[in-house]
Amino acid sequence: MKLKLLAISTIVAASALTATLVNAQFAKPEAAIKYRKAALTVMGTHFARIGAVVKGEAPFNKEDVAKNAAIVSTMSHLPWQAFGPGTEGGDALPSVWSDAAKFTSLSEKLTAATAALNTAAQSGDLDAVKKAFGATGQTCKACHDDFKKKG
Amino acid sequence: MKLKLLAISTIVAASALTATLVNAQFAKPEAAIKYRKAALTVMGTHFARIGAVVKGEAPFNKEDVAKNAAIVSTMSHLPWQAFGPGTEGGDALPSVWSDAAKFTSLSEKLTAATAALNTAAQSGDLDAVKKAFGATGQTCKACHDDFKKKG
Repeated sequence: MKLKLLAISTIVAASALTATLVNAQFAKPEAAIKYRKAALTVMGTHFARIGAVVKGEAPFNKEDVAKNAAIVSTMSHLPWQAFGPGTEGGDALPSVWSDAAKFTSLSEKLTAATAALNTAAQSGDLDAVKKAFGATGQTCKACHDDFKKKG
Repeated sequence: MKLKLLAISTIVAASALTATLVNAQFAKPEAAIKYRKAALTVMGTHFARIGAVVKGEAPFNKEDVAKNAAIVSTMSHLPWQAFGPGTEGGDALPSVWSDAAKFTSLSEKLTAATAALNTAAQSGDLDAVKKAFGATGQTCKACHDDFKKKG
């Protein structure tokens, strides 16, 4: 019984914390939606630039790939704060909120994958970049499959 | 005569370079417009969070201000690549392209100001943050006055 109460109060406290954080950071749900789309757009743009190199559509310039990977890694931390309670909408499926634990887990996988991509890119080893790019792409897809509106 | 030819060929080469860069980086003008809006949205959001602290509307948490300033500084490098030839539109006035030298100069002032803001924020000195925040805000305003659509 005590354990159950503790568990409930932990959930309540965590929700309250998230709500406060979101309220403090975004004046309106629309601002949160706009922000997370923006962060994902910037991340996606620089990820695609690495993709063009990986696919052989653009020449391999170590410095450019390193810069793009650093931006992707930085951006990968940003969108998730903007999926707080009360910010449903945009391209997000309701599952973001109904299956929040899975969504959070996938967002953490992306952040870890982009950190590895950044490490590979800073090393300048194209084969390592290709591998890390593929792994990162898988984390994007896994999350979009379950949590992003199609079409 | 030789000098004039050199000047002309430099301008042509520079334009070609910019065009290539933009074409390579953005498949369509709409993608460039979406990207620059996104980068400015992320920058503006984190700048506003520092603003809330500066105005006393949010408590001063050194770590948060330092994180926000680092993001602002990183983002300040990004939007300008997306104002290439053929990407007119969005919130940008035609003056961005007709007075490109001034626009570029103001973008460089912003980048320098955000670097100084970041230095102040990493030091954890609130007075220095306030000063650097004000100076950065002036560079935002100076550019918006001449180059951003009103309303």
